[in-house]
Amino acid sequence: MSTPEERLAGLGLSVPDVVPPVAAYLPAVRSGAMVYTAGQIPMREGSLVATGKVGADVTQETAYECARQCALNAMAAIRSVTGTLEGVRILKVGVFVASAPDFTAQAAVANGASELFGEVFGELGVHARSAVGVAVLPLDSAVEVEVIAEVVG
Amino acid sequence: MSTPEERLAGLGLSVPDVVPPVAAYLPAVRSGAMVYTAGQIPMREGSLVATGKVGADVTQETAYECARQCALNAMAAIRSVTGTLEGVRILKVGVFVASAPDFTAQAAVANGASELFGEVFGELGVHARSAVGVAVLPLDSAVEVEVIAEVVG
Amino acid sequence: MSTPEERLAGLGLSVPDVVPPVAAYLPAVRSGAMVYTAGQIPMREGSLVATGKVGADVTQETAYECARQCALNAMAAIRSVTGTLEGVRILKVGVFVASAPDFTAQAAVANGASELFGEVFGELGVHARSAVGVAVLPLDSAVEVEVIAEVVG
Repeated sequence: MSTPEERLAGLGLSVPDVVPPVAAYLPAVRSGAMVYTAGQIPMREGSLVATGKVGADVTQETAYECARQCALNAMAAIRSVTGTLEGVRILKVGVFVASAPDFTAQAAVANGASELFGEVFGELGVHARSAVGVAVLPLDSAVEVEVIAEVVG
Repeated sequence: MSTPEERLAGLGLSVPDVVPPVAAYLPAVRSGAMVYTAGQIPMREGSLVATGKVGADVTQETAYECARQCALNAMAAIRSVTGTLEGVRILKVGVFVASAPDFTAQAAVANGASELFGEVFGELGVHARSAVGVAVLPLDSAVEVEVIAEVVG
Repeated sequence: MSTPEERLAGLGLSVPDVVPPVAAYLPAVRSGAMVYTAGQIPMREGSLVATGKVGADVTQETAYECARQCALNAMAAIRSVTGTLEGVRILKVGVFVASAPDFTAQAAVANGASELFGEVFGELGVHARSAVGVAVLPLDSAVEVEVIAEVVG
């Protein structure tokens, strides 16, 4: 059976460096088996995959890609407190989409995160999820994703 | 002492079928005693109770009814992983209200969920809550509700 | 070693009275070691520190002060179920900033809460955090903060 890291490699991906918090907090904290990540924005090699409002400045397809990058960054945050992605279960995912007032496909955007978690963690990646459309996000990010995970290993 | 299901019946309500997720996730997940629901929108018999922005397209009264339906759907989601509502404690409720910029009665809307939880679960239904006004919700839903619950039975 | 209450006093602050919920819920609930607070708005001596949208009606500096007051109110909420702030660990902080569409410094605003938690709880105050910009908040509050904490004492 392959590990999450091996499945990431199979997708041509790897866990990025942890994105340093914009401010006075940590990328993730662990309490017993539970892990709470900070809200992750789609930083990739030091810059955001997209900024602006989805449905106006950003297409749904690009926003999906943003959510996927956020999920990858969340894996880095989780691994920063667990040391590994093996035995990690994704419980709850919150997806905030900076949205034009008439953009209502937040669920399709959020699938960028949900589907990557499924691909990488298998049945341990199947989670509950909320997706909402917000006015604006930090640094004008198009998407932000937060995760509650559990170490079941 | 009556069960939550009996109290629902006393209100002329019953636990609906679980609303199928719009996307790649589950209605609820359980980890030990903890249950996290997905964000619930006010689906009733296959369509949303209301769409649009509260304070513009949707009245406060209708939005209250939406929040109540979301709570009912959350009970279905919880029961899908617990098998029963007996011994379920509602800990935290998050209410997102798609809001016109000058609509500030999110708390009154959210009471549609909070009061139903109180009626159905009694003292196990008294929870902490956040209510916020967001730009837009999936499928143009007027309200979305997520729940963290606990099995204390 | 000083207690959180002593560190608050050193900052010229004290834990305020618990802000009564606007509606049908509790300021905080406890489940075992876990504490979930309700969303806290910046009530100070019975009125909000600021109302309106940050970046339009409210400056970033005033919004920072709002977040700090929300954090203080969250401490009151936590203490209402723990009896003390000693041995309390702040795990996750969610910050909602009512934002003008072009205001993107939600992280700087949220630092008003994060930095106070750090000052008061020391290493037990270092948390994961999400900050988002929302359309509008209850009672037209400029900021709302929710907390997940843990009793480690």
